[in-house]
Amino acid sequence: AQDEPIMEFGMRRAQGIDGAITASRAAYIGGCDYTSNVIAGKLYDIPVKGTHSHSWVMVFDDELESFETYAHTLPDNVVFLVDTYDSLKGVHRAIEVGKWLKKQGKKMLGIRLDSGDLAYLSKKCRKLLDEAGFEDTLIYATNELDETIISDLKRQGAKIGVWGVGTKLTTAYSQPALDGVYKLSAIRNPGEEWKYKLKLSERMTKISNPGILEVKRYRQNGRYIADVIYNKGTNMSKGCCVIDPLDATRQKIIGKEFDCEDLLVPVFRSGELVYKLPSLHEIQQRAKDELSHFHDGVKRFLNPHQYVVGMEKSLYDLKIKLVENIRLKKN
Amino acid sequence: AQDEPIMEFGMRRAQGIDGAITASRAAYIGGCDYTSNVIAGKLYDIPVKGTHSHSWVMVFDDELESFETYAHTLPDNVVFLVDTYDSLKGVHRAIEVGKWLKKQGKKMLGIRLDSGDLAYLSKKCRKLLDEAGFEDTLIYATNELDETIISDLKRQGAKIGVWGVGTKLTTAYSQPALDGVYKLSAIRNPGEEWKYKLKLSERMTKISNPGILEVKRYRQNGRYIADVIYNKGTNMSKGCCVIDPLDATRQKIIGKEFDCEDLLVPVFRSGELVYKLPSLHEIQQRAKDELSHFHDGVKRFLNPHQYVVGMEKSLYDLKIKLVENIRLKKN
Repeated sequence: AQDEPIMEFGMRRAQGIDGAITASRAAYIGGCDYTSNVIAGKLYDIPVKGTHSHSWVMVFDDELESFETYAHTLPDNVVFLVDTYDSLKGVHRAIEVGKWLKKQGKKMLGIRLDSGDLAYLSKKCRKLLDEAGFEDTLIYATNELDETIISDLKRQGAKIGVWGVGTKLTTAYSQPALDGVYKLSAIRNPGEEWKYKLKLSERMTKISNPGILEVKRYRQNGRYIADVIYNKGTNMSKGCCVIDPLDATRQKIIGKEFDCEDLLVPVFRSGELVYKLPSLHEIQQRAKDELSHFHDGVKRFLNPHQYVVGMEKSLYDLKIKLVENIRLKKN
Repeated sequence: AQDEPIMEFGMRRAQGIDGAITASRAAYIGGCDYTSNVIAGKLYDIPVKGTHSHSWVMVFDDELESFETYAHTLPDNVVFLVDTYDSLKGVHRAIEVGKWLKKQGKKMLGIRLDSGDLAYLSKKCRKLLDEAGFEDTLIYATNELDETIISDLKRQGAKIGVWGVGTKLTTAYSQPALDGVYKLSAIRNPGEEWKYKLKLSERMTKISNPGILEVKRYRQNGRYIADVIYNKGTNMSKGCCVIDPLDATRQKIIGKEFDCEDLLVPVFRSGELVYKLPSLHEIQQRAKDELSHFHDGVKRFLNPHQYVVGMEKSLYDLKIKLVENIRLKKN
């Protein structure tokens, strides 16, 4: 949604309470501005935002009466959900109550569309609101939104000021599980040398990496250019050669002139916390800053450019040697 | 997996601890026999089962030594994960240790395959085990299994005795969110008549149902034939006419001679628990019994027959009348 605010609305679709809380926290870190999950808001100091429900409208005989009652009850938090019966009629009723609010010195913060053609309706509603003098009243949109739909609505010139995203965010719909594993990579007895270990597989993608692994991120003119996995103790001061482990012909030489930083930070050492935990706001800011250093090409949705991630050459050679040793080993 | 046991192995891919616990509980209700989630096992009395890890094998210089040590340590719980380096070599090593176990009067319960061509490997391993006199040792299989892969492996004659299913079960991979909502359907003030309510939408699928809703399930010769949503108080004693709300030309007359039962059971009344909670084992048994009453055609994976679910005619008529009333209502 570029610079427009996103509200995370996914609690009802998460796995249990704890699943919802972790999802709300992750969504905030990833850049969301608000959550509708009140307990996550309390635990992590995430700003909480929501609107009234359809049932609020349906409890009354009349939509206008429901809006009036809401405005009387919570005059500082007025966002009207207008699509219970007919979105355009709903906006007319919202404007009527908005005028009353103005007279009280209060403000109609927004209206919310939750169905129908959001591109068409938002433009139509924007026009109605502007003509009635409600230029500051924002249009909130929800309804199975995800990054593709938001981007398409923006392309169509939809007049949406705040985006509510639920199911597709909280369940990571397009990729419901992060297919990561952790494997033993090195071990030693006290006083002995490290022994490097790997899990073998017929497929290179599933062979684990040996070594005491560290990750270096390189940058050029403020842009990140590559992440390199290397074995601790390797001399990286003269730059390095990165290899794609799935296609060893893809190599990239990184000169010593490039800036770099190590990404792994010790959090626990022998069971002791040795790390100062940042606040959630600092984590969100860091995620935002880090993203800004990646080229737009790697961030686009369609056919993104592939960011370089690979293994430092001597680590790759160690891996291949270990694979060969195990494969040659007799029964 | 038909009558073969399923172990639920998905904890690491669930949303948080609570998400994992609810997923393990649901998997057990749905028919799984075991879970690897120890806390869920403790909380719900679900049998707990697992095998050792790849890292157990990798800690040792030698796979044989790792199997021997495991068998010495836990001789009553021996299932060897044989694919850390090479599954067939691994089985040979397992057999060697299995023979030692036999001499101790113990049993090698199983071997586990976690990668590669499970159809080919399981047949090959079965043969090796049988030839060595381990006809009772079961082959456990895991690796991104789901209902389609299991069914295909069985079709290929794979010799798998126990199935471990994780990611695809715990994250409901093919449908990461249950797209259900609840809406206000009727309301009344004390001493007044019920008012029926609905949420309108341009699309019939999204228009909610008014009424004090009940659900009746009909059966014929022990088979379930239809679920009918009706408004409480409707006289159903003479049978009914069910309508598909998305296509009102699809109607089915259900005669009064069919057996039926109401599916909804009050759990809370005015904040009081009025229901005797069944044990998880009873819930699992009920799910199994209920499933057995559905025709195989509605349970197959490919092009299943559509089970009849619809609205009782007078409820459908009430819905249409309310939709028309709201649409005709002036601004």
